[in-house]
Amino acid sequence: MSELNRQVVLASRPKGTPRVENFALRSVKLPRLQRGDVHLQNLVLSLDAGFRNWMNEHSGNHVLPTMTLGEPVIGLTLGRVVESHHDSFAPGDVLVSRQAWEEHSVVRGDDIIVKLRIDPGDAHPLTWHVGVLGDTGMSAYFGMLDIGRPRPGETVLVSAAGGAVGSVAGQIGRLQDARVVGIASGATKCNRLVAELGYHAAVDRTAADFEEQLASSAPAGIDVYFDNAGGPLLEKVLARINLHARIVLCGAVADYESASATGPSNLFQLVVKQARMEGFMTNALGSRYAEARTQLSSWLAAGQLKNVEDVRVGLEETPQAFCDLLGGRTFGKTAIRLG
Amino acid sequence: MSELNRQVVLASRPKGTPRVENFALRSVKLPRLQRGDVHLQNLVLSLDAGFRNWMNEHSGNHVLPTMTLGEPVIGLTLGRVVESHHDSFAPGDVLVSRQAWEEHSVVRGDDIIVKLRIDPGDAHPLTWHVGVLGDTGMSAYFGMLDIGRPRPGETVLVSAAGGAVGSVAGQIGRLQDARVVGIASGATKCNRLVAELGYHAAVDRTAADFEEQLASSAPAGIDVYFDNAGGPLLEKVLARINLHARIVLCGAVADYESASATGPSNLFQLVVKQARMEGFMTNALGSRYAEARTQLSSWLAAGQLKNVEDVRVGLEETPQAFCDLLGGRTFGKTAIRLG
Repeated sequence: MSELNRQVVLASRPKGTPRVENFALRSVKLPRLQRGDVHLQNLVLSLDAGFRNWMNEHSGNHVLPTMTLGEPVIGLTLGRVVESHHDSFAPGDVLVSRQAWEEHSVVRGDDIIVKLRIDPGDAHPLTWHVGVLGDTGMSAYFGMLDIGRPRPGETVLVSAAGGAVGSVAGQIGRLQDARVVGIASGATKCNRLVAELGYHAAVDRTAADFEEQLASSAPAGIDVYFDNAGGPLLEKVLARINLHARIVLCGAVADYESASATGPSNLFQLVVKQARMEGFMTNALGSRYAEARTQLSSWLAAGQLKNVEDVRVGLEETPQAFCDLLGGRTFGKTAIRLG
Repeated sequence: MSELNRQVVLASRPKGTPRVENFALRSVKLPRLQRGDVHLQNLVLSLDAGFRNWMNEHSGNHVLPTMTLGEPVIGLTLGRVVESHHDSFAPGDVLVSRQAWEEHSVVRGDDIIVKLRIDPGDAHPLTWHVGVLGDTGMSAYFGMLDIGRPRPGETVLVSAAGGAVGSVAGQIGRLQDARVVGIASGATKCNRLVAELGYHAAVDRTAADFEEQLASSAPAGIDVYFDNAGGPLLEKVLARINLHARIVLCGAVADYESASATGPSNLFQLVVKQARMEGFMTNALGSRYAEARTQLSSWLAAGQLKNVEDVRVGLEETPQAFCDLLGGRTFGKTAIRLG
């Protein structure tokens, strides 16, 4: 097998927001399959802010090891099995799994962490399985419904509201008859939140009068905060939570970028407001994906839920797309479609 | 009615840990009872770190207004009704309510916030009703069992473990067959935690090797953190929590003393560990006090739960006792017994 494989490797560890120079493309020869190996052709790369964390030194934990310099960047892909020497995988299988930013993955079948197997009859666009019907959709679904649990008339605030998770989370909040307020960077995104995603109001994180906008957009206080941003925003939100508020910690993009970030000085608000803050990872919820996908698909089919995505074509677009994602320049799910 | 009433007033707003000069004693004439008024003779003053918060300027919220300079300090008392012009109260009634640091309280019956009515047949020492069977015992009970929910074999960590809440919380954790580790200031308190309260281990917050002590005392990580201290401790504990950990925010003594305290920089641990942090106030749980008092009384009677308290006699001892409490120089519940 002399086929060439193109990969995006981690050329240097990003400081703060990643730059394209932190990544490099390389071509390597695809290895010959050994006993137990599987060859996946990756059709979609999922770009996820959360993976930024493991580009830092000493960032390894039970979720992922620290990424290795000069090696392909770890991420989620949707791939089709081309060849398999493992009983659990057959040619033609389409699955979302943890792989790397590369066109082909030749890996031990035993090591494949399958997030999702796509039913052969499934007619959704492939990118949806890494977005609204994939991990980010699952994060929105379980975070909002299991932890946030908005009741009709309550106020739900979503940060990074135009992101892969936020764009879905806000809509799920609206479908629970809550008043939904989004925080995003810049007037363009804020306008899209209201016009395209049905947010009741949007607050521009970059505006000089951000706090006044937040106060006037949530005049009755905040019952559910779905936090995709982390960092100093949390402190400002805690100051406005209502009794029995629920704070969903889904990710912390701001934290990924500065290990020395200080936390909110007003956690005492959780006591006074008898409030709850809870973090979660979708990787523990695999057994419930089917339930969530059925509900989300039904909302999508009925036009009650809108999918937004920023899909670019070709592996070579990956570094720029990832930098745009972390720099807040994408809207909806960011993904790469491969040949 | 020409009886004199002695009171402790707030002479100046404390900066950091209170000093006795922040308080002053004064004698005033007891007012004549008006229609609807009740006259309580206070028998016990409950000293509670939480009330320190409302001595600060602009500290008012839905729980308590900011205390007024030159006026009696607000606190919980156990008092006996001497005279009543209100249908809900009769002479001889004994109740725990929010009053002030004074020997007598003449107040409108409609304004009395009753925490507890003591059954005439109750044989417990009166001070217990503001401690192990009062608000602090309730905090320990509901915080540990409703939010912390330790399972057998799990590790429970309690900060301010020798305090009014901590001394009970740790024992409740032990009664759930958890491994219980306490944090306290100084070797003397740490020794008492193990010797008198049955903590499995104690960690000295003031020791140079505090973090090493914490690590070796909780080698399997921390499943429940019952936080009575707030402040920088929380960050050190978050670094050691296990998957699905529960963090009970019961109070934040460290926070009361420094409004500018920064929060933990590692809240992302809640995400990675799918953990929950929840605050609570016992004032919302009044309807369940009877359930908790029955269980706690039964543990006390069986010798499975030990009550520890620092009771001083005479109103004039109040300022020093409160300063000792906030300075970490008391063990168990701090209270004042009046004539």
